[in-house]
Amino acid sequence: MQRIKMIISYDGSAFFGYQVQPNQRTVQSEIEGALKNMHKGSDIRIYASGRTDAGVHAVGQVIHFDSPYKIPASKWKIALNSLLPNDIAIGHAQVVTNDFHARFDVKKKEYRYKIETNQDRDVFTRNYLYHFPYTLDYLSIKEAIKYLVGTHDFTSFCSAKTEVEDKVRTIYEIEFFEDKNGELIFRFVGDGFLYNMIRIMVGTLLEVGQGMKKPIEILEILEAKNRQKAGKTVPGTGLYLWKVYYDN
Amino acid sequence: MQRIKMIISYDGSAFFGYQVQPNQRTVQSEIEGALKNMHKGSDIRIYASGRTDAGVHAVGQVIHFDSPYKIPASKWKIALNSLLPNDIAIGHAQVVTNDFHARFDVKKKEYRYKIETNQDRDVFTRNYLYHFPYTLDYLSIKEAIKYLVGTHDFTSFCSAKTEVEDKVRTIYEIEFFEDKNGELIFRFVGDGFLYNMIRIMVGTLLEVGQGMKKPIEILEILEAKNRQKAGKTVPGTGLYLWKVYYDN
Repeated sequence: MQRIKMIISYDGSAFFGYQVQPNQRTVQSEIEGALKNMHKGSDIRIYASGRTDAGVHAVGQVIHFDSPYKIPASKWKIALNSLLPNDIAIGHAQVVTNDFHARFDVKKKEYRYKIETNQDRDVFTRNYLYHFPYTLDYLSIKEAIKYLVGTHDFTSFCSAKTEVEDKVRTIYEIEFFEDKNGELIFRFVGDGFLYNMIRIMVGTLLEVGQGMKKPIEILEILEAKNRQKAGKTVPGTGLYLWKVYYDN
Repeated sequence: MQRIKMIISYDGSAFFGYQVQPNQRTVQSEIEGALKNMHKGSDIRIYASGRTDAGVHAVGQVIHFDSPYKIPASKWKIALNSLLPNDIAIGHAQVVTNDFHARFDVKKKEYRYKIETNQDRDVFTRNYLYHFPYTLDYLSIKEAIKYLVGTHDFTSFCSAKTEVEDKVRTIYEIEFFEDKNGELIFRFVGDGFLYNMIRIMVGTLLEVGQGMKKPIEILEILEAKNRQKAGKTVPGTGLYLWKVYYDN
């Protein structure tokens, strides 16, 4: 038995999210289907760093699984890529020790959220960016960001549907910048994120950028521990699981 | 009765081409459906600069149609955009004189073909670029391009299926360059292009870039007037109708 770690990317547009769901096309079911095919009908369970929702993309999702095959890592990548649909790709594969776990060993995660503010909608980016055709005050957004960085109870920035008890998380970094294509990027690095947390933080920061909230109000929202106080949840289309960090 | 000219863009991925076909989703049928909706069930026929095939995109396709409504051009754009699916967008609308015709008045057309040569396939560009993971000799491609520019009989670069008699066309410009994202772009400007002509020219230029054909062989291929002598037809996914030129 060999444990394989893989870095995968997927275009979330045509998936009902990452996790297996009955009668839905999901990333997990596609990969497990390809692995079952390679293993002559035996079920191989994969474990990811975490789920992603419908429409959400991944540039650097990490998974692991165990296989009885002693295939070199580079061959795993080629074999699995040839079996997968073209909206999932294996970027890197490596053999790891049996104590590695894609979910439990996560140290940090990086997500990015992409926005474009042009007046006209763009047919080519409709599944990859959030079209938000409004003027934004970048300085206010950058000021508000400072209040989110650090260790806080993020109850106000978490979907009320969540079942997680402990809502304290640490955000190490938030950056807001324009890339070479004129897209606006929010970059978040943290020890973990609650359900819809990035999307609610972005929605709130956009309200700050529009002058609907003052940057300092972020502190009040955090303190309130009430989802109603924060901004709207922005769509999943602009969200990317960018990178997952482990100890080595 | 007012004649309206519109510049439209579409993501060709989910269309069975531009032109109406029975039981297929096409760009023309979507726009005519939206116009019928606006005109209380009356059929409004649209005319385009030309068709595009399945999977082919448009940044600057031009259409015209006649309407009994005296709506200002800017309102046409807003009204139609609100009715269209999000893979078609109206970029510009203007009222024109009744002698304008989107197809018959075309002076020049510009197409672009986009390629990426990275080893790994990219899940996010799979519908928008042609993934061609091979090393290319740019200088050979640039030399070969010179033999294609000008007025020639392009029978060798035209699908054998075509019914057009006159296969003489003039290409004013071909450029080959790398854009800021590292994508390779072929840019073609001509008075008109035959069926699959761009895709066969690109397929042939890629064979030159790989050293399978010498640049000078382009001359022999043109002279042969035989589709078999040219290279493969590359996929429609990398092709964009970029701009249509009229006299004013």
